[in-house]
Amino acid sequence: MEEFSVRTTRKFQVIDITAKVQEIVKRGATPEGICCVFAPHATAAVTINENADPNIGEDLQEALAKLIPEGIWRHDRIDDNAAAHIKAAIVGPSETVPVKERKLMLGTWQSLMLVEFDGPRERKVFVQIR
Amino acid sequence: MEEFSVRTTRKFQVIDITAKVQEIVKRGATPEGICCVFAPHATAAVTINENADPNIGEDLQEALAKLIPEGIWRHDRIDDNAAAHIKAAIVGPSETVPVKERKLMLGTWQSLMLVEFDGPRERKVFVQIR
Amino acid sequence: MEEFSVRTTRKFQVIDITAKVQEIVKRGATPEGICCVFAPHATAAVTINENADPNIGEDLQEALAKLIPEGIWRHDRIDDNAAAHIKAAIVGPSETVPVKERKLMLGTWQSLMLVEFDGPRERKVFVQIR
Repeated sequence: MEEFSVRTTRKFQVIDITAKVQEIVKRGATPEGICCVFAPHATAAVTINENADPNIGEDLQEALAKLIPEGIWRHDRIDDNAAAHIKAAIVGPSETVPVKERKLMLGTWQSLMLVEFDGPRERKVFVQIR
Repeated sequence: MEEFSVRTTRKFQVIDITAKVQEIVKRGATPEGICCVFAPHATAAVTINENADPNIGEDLQEALAKLIPEGIWRHDRIDDNAAAHIKAAIVGPSETVPVKERKLMLGTWQSLMLVEFDGPRERKVFVQIR
Repeated sequence: MEEFSVRTTRKFQVIDITAKVQEIVKRGATPEGICCVFAPHATAAVTINENADPNIGEDLQEALAKLIPEGIWRHDRIDDNAAAHIKAAIVGPSETVPVKERKLMLGTWQSLMLVEFDGPRERKVFVQIR
């Protein structure tokens, strides 16, 4: 398993991690298989979508903010980030992508994205290929 | 890795792809393992649910249409399909299913489904078993 | 592939299954790889989030109940659990977690959770490591 870090700089952010994951896939021991990209965090997530227009990341954050408002949940009485936990549970901490000839088989309009719901923070991403 | 195509015929559609994936699993080199089913698209997704009543696919589309309305997002000023991108990012482009004795270990009421959010289009599905 | 059962006791419930999955990983044949945790059900799901405060599970259920109300869907005319199906399709039946030195590489605040949307029921969980 390999890992790298991403420093987020805002509370809500979507960061393209495709190049970092592809670099690991390229020099990995498994030319063909399944690549699991996993964020070991409870208030961040990993998703896949278009990054050619970075507005899509902003739109995703805005849509989730409308659906899961802040400050109205049980966990907010303990720690002020329940909405971040709920969003992370729905979007999910991982994506699994086929690998062929040492390449992530993403579509033309797909990028791997780390989704920050409670930044700024230092985040880790684990990459395991089998 | 194997792949097949699905032609969607409506803007919003849910298409059962279980038989096509099972056929690939059956003639594959891996009798026991993990099957990754991946749609290389940013406005379609893969999910698993009941297909015995096809209304469930319609209900899923309607629920997502209510939660993520059309035409109010930043990306809509560039391309008129931001809602499709947001839905695809939330549902996700892949599912990972255990394989045993060359069979997808789906439950009785589970089918693999391609979820179209911006059709009609020609869609691809990648299947990688490890 | 290994499996275990979980008996849910309420209609909506979130049950921590980390210890059971970790036990399978520990005695498995694959010290390093990818672990697929899969619920073969159409009205339950698997997710990952914090369990140190069990309120987060309650908050997740309440958030989904607000977003996907009961009793207004096509499938409700056939079987009274359409909302459970829609929620299960959105959260998804599986999670994929990297394994290293026979350990699930979950973060400090991450637990694997079975999410019941239509209990009480006997639920199965499949675990496949590759």
